[in-house]
This record gives sequence, structure tokens and C-alpha cells, in this order.
Amino acid sequence: MRVINFNPGPAGLPLPALERARDELLDFQGSGMSVMEHSHRGREYEAVHDEAIALLTELTGLPSTHQVLFLTGGASQQFAQVPMNFLTPDTSADYLMTGVWSEKALDEARYYGKARVAVTTVRPDKHYTRVPRQDELKLDPQASYVHLTSNNTIYGTQWHTPPDVGTVPLVADMSSDFLWKKMDLSRFGLVYAGAQKNLGPSGVTLVVADKGFIARGRKDIPKIFRYSVHAENNSLYNTPPTLAIYLVRNVLAWMKSVGGLEQVEAWNRQKAELLYGALDRLSGFYRAPVERESRSVMNVVFHLPTPELDAAFVADAKQQGMVGLKGHRTAGGIRVSTYNAVTVENVRTLVTFMEHFVKTRG
Amino acid sequence: MRVINFNPGPAGLPLPALERARDELLDFQGSGMSVMEHSHRGREYEAVHDEAIALLTELTGLPSTHQVLFLTGGASQQFAQVPMNFLTPDTSADYLMTGVWSEKALDEARYYGKARVAVTTVRPDKHYTRVPRQDELKLDPQASYVHLTSNNTIYGTQWHTPPDVGTVPLVADMSSDFLWKKMDLSRFGLVYAGAQKNLGPSGVTLVVADKGFIARGRKDIPKIFRYSVHAENNSLYNTPPTLAIYLVRNVLAWMKSVGGLEQVEAWNRQKAELLYGALDRLSGFYRAPVERESRSVMNVVFHLPTPELDAAFVADAKQQGMVGLKGHRTAGGIRVSTYNAVTVENVRTLVTFMEHFVKTRG
Ligand SMILES: Cc1ncc(COP(=O)(O)O)c(C=O)c1O
Ligand SMILES: Cc1ncc(COP(=O)(O)O)c(C=O)c1O
Ligand SMILES: [Mg+2]
Ligand SMILES: [Mg+2]
Ligand SMILES: [Mg+2]
Ligand SMILES: [Mg+2]
Repeated sequence: MRVINFNPGPAGLPLPALERARDELLDFQGSGMSVMEHSHRGREYEAVHDEAIALLTELTGLPSTHQVLFLTGGASQQFAQVPMNFLTPDTSADYLMTGVWSEKALDEARYYGKARVAVTTVRPDKHYTRVPRQDELKLDPQASYVHLTSNNTIYGTQWHTPPDVGTVPLVADMSSDFLWKKMDLSRFGLVYAGAQKNLGPSGVTLVVADKGFIARGRKDIPKIFRYSVHAENNSLYNTPPTLAIYLVRNVLAWMKSVGGLEQVEAWNRQKAELLYGALDRLSGFYRAPVERESRSVMNVVFHLPTPELDAAFVADAKQQGMVGLKGHRTAGGIRVSTYNAVTVENVRTLVTFMEHFVKTRG
Repeated sequence: MRVINFNPGPAGLPLPALERARDELLDFQGSGMSVMEHSHRGREYEAVHDEAIALLTELTGLPSTHQVLFLTGGASQQFAQVPMNFLTPDTSADYLMTGVWSEKALDEARYYGKARVAVTTVRPDKHYTRVPRQDELKLDPQASYVHLTSNNTIYGTQWHTPPDVGTVPLVADMSSDFLWKKMDLSRFGLVYAGAQKNLGPSGVTLVVADKGFIARGRKDIPKIFRYSVHAENNSLYNTPPTLAIYLVRNVLAWMKSVGGLEQVEAWNRQKAELLYGALDRLSGFYRAPVERESRSVMNVVFHLPTPELDAAFVADAKQQGMVGLKGHRTAGGIRVSTYNAVTVENVRTLVTFMEHFVKTRG
């Protein structure tokens, strides 16, 4: 029996994508071997690789100005790889600070060049409960790029429209909301996301980048770190994480089969409405710290009246087959991660549980 | 029906390791979710992670001076990460040049500091057919480290004893022969290997390093690239490739179950004797270019009298259920990769085929 998985990442994946992997794990398409035993240069694997790229292109409506890459090292490696490619000791990038992951990205950038805080919504208690408004940004028109975290996994805040940054390339860490809906990726110089939320297992990092932007990246850095090298080699410069990419392909094929990103978005909005609706209705018991306009569709965070009740909530939910609800240690409380594989029905079950919990423990 | 897989990497994996993965792919140990859906900070996954490390420690008899790390980016990223950690523009490392992969490692090192060629066995035709003798090495006693490729996957040469490099830390790319037998890893400052030959799927890189050596690595580089950071966090600094590590665990558990590295070595020696025996016996037809003392136990390369016969050999073998025999484009000819998951019986089947091929086409 499968549990209801609200893990923040690695997270639950759509059952059909996993079943497909299981069914052909020992014999991929009658080839007599597992997909992970195939050469990354053979036609069987290359078809999977290219299909994953084609599906992503189709689902997002990606224009031909942009390219999909499969890298590794997680979003954390991108924190360093972006400035390695696009900063020098004499140039500067603008960072929009909205949470723990923005802070880590900024820290890594400072090894390569000047990284400016163009805005921060940090509060005196060091926490974050919103993303900035456009009029708060103090942008440097000379910046090499502007970096933001589109969804703050820990604090449960999200940019609902990307800011206007003029002609400076916009770089976004979309680890926890990539593909939550259809969006205009042509507005971004580079987008990156660890797969382990909406897209697949951990072990592969998706990058979608403007071809011109990455072609202008530094050439005096090791080849393996250059986006341009991976782009020229269709992410086959060295051995890619073939099994992880295969699973991403399965997840993307599932997304297409259920109706594409329009359907995925509709479900995600329903899930968020159910949860925030319950939090607003039961606000005498549950406290949702995030400002309304910054509420994340992917990670819904709240607190019960005491840490003991937080713990009881997590324990009781587990009893009822719902896992992954404990908030991040930085933020405490409860976090409900409702990535694409979480169903509306799963969220209804949780909301019913939340209502019952207030009645019995409130 | 599973084929006989002589792929050079990604390569065949032991069937029990794959079956175990398939059987629990949707429900890991009754947890109601796949291992890839578990949090990397939860106790279910951490048990797998720690078991993989414990198995590797036990199988290799690793002393407590050394630590196992799980990184990503393949061996190619290690080509850059090693000099990033241990070189500065003012310091130098010695490179022992024995093939294509040594050349790539040298090229990446030069972005960070001085990288000296302490020996090369390159021939006028740019190919390599042997590793150097100890008396050929021109070592710099001030070097930050000495780098070698223990097994040259493309050219089919192998160091059968690591060179004596005095007190300078020895760094080895063991991508294609790590765990082919028990060896004294305490002699190495750092060893790295992409998993996709002897150890698991692509997508995870094993590193075994001297704790003191990595603690002395540079601190003015991004955290994500510091071996010391991964060491302090038991390879959980950021989200590791959990599914790939789980599969490595399965492969290591299989190695232990069949009798450990002593048994694995015995099989590998038998396989190599069968193949090189056939090549020597049939040397009027098959030409094995590698000098006898440098012959690799893992990648056996040879040529037929013409490229047309090479191609016919590959095609006929495929007809008979044996795949992955085409030589690397750099070297041409045939390459038989006999990693740990290839059985003695598989090699006997190939040798019978080789004998038959000479009779019918020779
Ligand atoms: C928004 C965001 N960025 C970065 C990271 C770090 O990702 P990784 O562990 O893949 O390096 C996370 C992890 O949860 C995240 O949510
Ligand atoms: C000895 C050796 N080093 C390095 C590499 C490159 O490994 P990766 O593709 O994992 O970067 C290979 C790949 O076959 C190899 O055989
Ligand atoms: Mg995480
Ligand atoms: Mg955050
Ligand atoms: Mg390879
Ligand atoms: Mg080689």
C-alpha cells in the first residue's frame, strides 16, 4: 500500500512513471538489458534522452532560442556554476534574497565576483515571509545577471510573476516549482532545478538556458563546468546520469498524458486553494505566516499553537498514512509539499484530517 | 532474455542487484514508497547510504584514515575538482600520462595551477600501448599530488602496481578498475571512480580519500566543490543521488554475498586469462596491441586483420547475443570490457565465438 507522500524533496513521483520503470527494469524495450546498462552513446538510450528534451520543449512551449541541459550536482552546484560561468572578479551580479536557498546561492557567487544584494525581505528574526514587490528592487543595470529563487521551499513563499529586470539576464533557481504551470521561459537567461521535486529522482539537474547567454560564458574555466560545452554536446559531453534522465522522461510523459501543464496547473491551484482555504477557515488554530500575495502553491507552511501540537499533528497524520509533513528545521512547524505528483484527493484527505485535528485537539 | 553485455560503461550490472531494485521499486521495505521518493534525511534512506559506505569499507578493508564520499559529475568533474581543491597558480602537480583520460585530466588541471607531465607513454602515432616503468618517472618532490589513471579504458592498459611516489599524495582515476580486486587504498591520497563500470549506474561518483589530505584542501573555493565539506557532512551536504547510491549498495551487497573481492579477483583473473590466452593462441588473426606487462584485466582490446572484419565480428557477436564489443572510436578495433558483473561463463562463450570466427572468416 502506497502512503500519501508530502515530502519536500526527494518527493513522491507519479505512480505510472514508477510502474513503467519497474516493468522494464531488467529488459528495456526487449533489448535484453536494463536502461541503466545501455551505453549513453547507443541509440536506445539516446532515444530516451532526446525524448525527454522533446517532451520538456513541447510541454513548456520552449522557443528555439533556448536549450534544455541535463547536469548533475543538484541546485547547490548551480549556485557555484552560474557565477563561475558569468562572473569575474571585476563584474557584479544582483541577488534577490528571499530565503535560505538565496543566501546559499549568494555565498557561492562571492568566490567568483561581486554579488550584490539588490533586495532582501529578511526580517529582524532572520526569517522570510514574503517575496519583494517590483518597487523594492534596487537593480544595477550593469549586472551580469539577476538571480532569484522562484519558490522558497523552506519558507513557503513564491514569486507569482517574475520581476522586470530590464535587459539584464534573469537567472532563476526553480528547484521547487519548475513545471508547476506553463510559463514563458524565454524571459529567462537560465533556469535550473534539481529534479527531485516535480521532475524525477535526485541525481539530475535540469537547466533551461538562452543559447546566446551561455555561449557568452567564460572560456577560461574547466570544460566540464562550461554550460556551452554541455550545450554543444547535447548533455553528452561525459556520461550523463542515464537512469535519472530516463525517470524524468517517464514523469514528463505522464504529464503529457494527463493533459500537459494546463491540467497540472489546474490541479496545483485546486490543491493550494483547498489548503489555504482550510488555513484561513481554521486560523484560530493554524497560523500561516506567509503574506497572502507571496503564498507558495508548492509548499504550504503553517504552525499549530505549540511545538508539541506540531509534533502530534505529524505523528497522527503518519498514523493515517500521510508522511513528510514536518517543517524544515530552520522554520519549524508544518510544511505540506504539494508537488505535481500529489493528487487533489491526497490534499482533500489531509484537509479532512486537519479539520478533525482541530476538533479533537484544538 | 538478457544479453551478454560487454559494454565499456555504463555497463552490465549483477542481475541480483537489479532484481532487488525491481522487486521493491514501488514499495521500499514496506514503507509505502519507492527508495527514490524517500527524503535523503530520513532514516530509511540514511540506512542505505550508511550501508553502502560500510560495505565498501568492509570489502576494501579501508583504514579509518580514509573516508568514502558519494559525489556527482562523473570522473570528468573530478578532473577539475581535484586541482580546484589542491592546486593554486603557484603550485604544481605531476601527471602520469597513459591515455585519453589522463590527457583530459591534465587539461582541466591547467585552469587551476601548474600541471607537469612527469612521464608519458604516448607514441608517435598519438596512441598508448603501455603504462610506464618506475624508472621512467621524473617526479617533482614538491608536487601537490601525483595523478594517474589506473586503468585506461580506451587503450586497455593497466597499472598492476601503483608507482612509488614517495611522500607526495597519489591521486588515481580508478573509474574502470575500482574494486576489481582488493587493494591497499591507504597508499592513495584520493581515488575516484564513476560508478558506471564496476559499481552501479551512471550518476554517482565514488571517492575514497585520506581525511588529512582533503582537510588540507583549499577553503577559498565554493563549498559545494570542497571535498572537506562533503566529508564533514557524510556526503549529505546537499541532496545526493539517492537512487544511484541505493543501486551501488545493491551491487556491493552482491559482491559480499559471492565471497568479497577475493572471489571477484579470482573471476576477473580467469576471464582475463581466457581472453588473452585466446588472443595469444590465435595471434595470426587477432592482434593485441598492448604490451604484455600492461595488459588490462578489465578492458581487452584487439584488432582483426581489417576494419571490415572488425565490423563483421561485432555484428556476428550481436547475432549471438553478445553486445558492446566495438572499440572506442579513438582506438578502433574490438574492446571486450569484462567488469565484475561479466561472468566467466560469458567470457567462455565469447572465446568459443572468437575461435569459430577465425575458422569461418580467418
Ligand atoms: C529552492 C531550492 N534550491 C536549492 C536546493 C538545493 O538543492 P540540492 O539539494 O539539489 O542541491 C533546494 C533543496 O531543497 C531548494 O528547494
Ligand atoms: C578511466 C576513465 N576516466 C574518466 C572517464 C570519464 O567518466 P565520466 O563519463 O563519468 O565523466 C571514463 C569514462 O569512460 C574512464 O573510463
Ligand atoms: Mg532537499
Ligand atoms: Mg527557502
Ligand atoms: Mg563512458
Ligand atoms: Mg584511456
